[in-house]
Amino acid sequence: MKQLENKKVFGGQQQRYQHSAETTHCEMTFSIFLPPQAETGKVPVLYWLSGLTCNDQNFATKAGAQALAAELGIAIVMPDTSPRGDDVADAEPSAWDLGKAAGFYINAAQAPWAPHYRMYDYVVKELPELVEATFPVTQQRAIAGHSMGGHGALMIALRNPQRYASVSAFAPIANPSQCPWGQKAFNAYLGTNQNDWLAYDSVALIQNGAAESAPPLLVDTGDADEFLEPQLGLEALSQACEVNYPKATLRMQAGYDHSYYFIASFINQHLRFHAEHLNQASPTSPTSL
Amino acid sequence: MKQLENKKVFGGQQQRYQHSAETTHCEMTFSIFLPPQAETGKVPVLYWLSGLTCNDQNFATKAGAQALAAELGIAIVMPDTSPRGDDVADAEPSAWDLGKAAGFYINAAQAPWAPHYRMYDYVVKELPELVEATFPVTQQRAIAGHSMGGHGALMIALRNPQRYASVSAFAPIANPSQCPWGQKAFNAYLGTNQNDWLAYDSVALIQNGAAESAPPLLVDTGDADEFLEPQLGLEALSQACEVNYPKATLRMQAGYDHSYYFIASFINQHLRFHAEHLNQASPTSPTSL
Repeated sequence: MKQLENKKVFGGQQQRYQHSAETTHCEMTFSIFLPPQAETGKVPVLYWLSGLTCNDQNFATKAGAQALAAELGIAIVMPDTSPRGDDVADAEPSAWDLGKAAGFYINAAQAPWAPHYRMYDYVVKELPELVEATFPVTQQRAIAGHSMGGHGALMIALRNPQRYASVSAFAPIANPSQCPWGQKAFNAYLGTNQNDWLAYDSVALIQNGAAESAPPLLVDTGDADEFLEPQLGLEALSQACEVNYPKATLRMQAGYDHSYYFIASFINQHLRFHAEHLNQASPTSPTSL
Repeated sequence: MKQLENKKVFGGQQQRYQHSAETTHCEMTFSIFLPPQAETGKVPVLYWLSGLTCNDQNFATKAGAQALAAELGIAIVMPDTSPRGDDVADAEPSAWDLGKAAGFYINAAQAPWAPHYRMYDYVVKELPELVEATFPVTQQRAIAGHSMGGHGALMIALRNPQRYASVSAFAPIANPSQCPWGQKAFNAYLGTNQNDWLAYDSVALIQNGAAESAPPLLVDTGDADEFLEPQLGLEALSQACEVNYPKATLRMQAGYDHSYYFIASFINQHLRFHAEHLNQASPTSPTSL
């Protein structure tokens, strides 16, 4: 593993690494924020999944999360949004909603995507194993994300409830099998059999009972979000949660759009939400809450 | 004046405008953050001057200043760093430290720069007049900046002490006539007579007594700043301030570099510093300090 960057921020360290990933068969880049508390002990980890067109750095530079994460003693791991490199298939013609920077956090089953596009396995298994073997972190995990990354966070938490203390999302693509972005990606990566899509669709997972043991969920969406219709599927999410996900809190925020200005405005509330549940998950690990 | 963008952030508005500027004879773009208090009354303004390679958006997206500015009730105006457009001269061959995005906040006297490169007049006069005629702001002003913008803020405050309640800088190019960046720019924009440079050199201005009536100054620099030597001239600034600028506070911050991670880590302290002095400047204008 090669360190690409190491910058001090709010008393902690904002670092960037490149490593050879087994799941995606390519060099993967991720960013990590280590709070000052990591110098003297182990800290829990929030995984942040970014949206379409992003890489591992958008959240690091634009969300303003490090200030409160440094206070709360939470590390933040920011994976890239797809496999990368000359060997990796991309959309033809080039598109911002398919291929590179649009991995959708799933394991592709179709050519030409299948060998590299395995972001589900990368985010759920390989990256946490690497992080927990390398950095001063506990196995307490939370997961969050934005847009495509909100879909990833929610879907991954629903499928792996024991692995995360809490999950949150900003403007998630909550019902990808029913929206243009999701249908385009799932058709390409998973094929035309829509039954194969349901394991990666948060609304379908909740409807099928996956939220029964899932961690507490917080979702914020702006009512001026330019992608609210037809991409996000929040009404379907709301209906599914009302019936099947009692630990879900869904909020609409008046006047906010889909941008990082929206994320920055509410990220501290999400960090406090995760800190509360990470803290409960390990009463022996004192934090500065 | 044309609005290019309007996004809600921390309850306020992050906006971007383009207008035809008389001083620089071209279309200029600036960003402005209006705090929620601007909906019901007038608020003071902090002018933020950015560094080399930046435009009006870097500070808006990366510094994380809006959270506290929204709480304190301070507007932030972020001008571009040079004139722009096809008619505007640029460095040949292209360079990131001369020409576009490198205006150095001076009035150029030499061809081919002279007609457009008048960022001093633009920032000191034209932009505040426009802002104060257009937005719900008072005539209370503070000024701050980073690197080339730190030079601009300090130099402008020293030359116009009555116009600003306070001035601050991150890693300023404090003694441009004595460093490679400044010498390259001043040679091009002002010509080879180094006496003409001194009116734009903060250390020279302080040595010549300009700080006598200047507003309080706060400067933060990281001791891991990759440009500390030979570009910033902070030892010369420190010596000049010790003799001639009693209201100056210069701080070195251990481990921080020249990046926006450094700015984000200390911007709230700068905002509180400016709020305190803006507040004193207008006891009749209540703020939420």
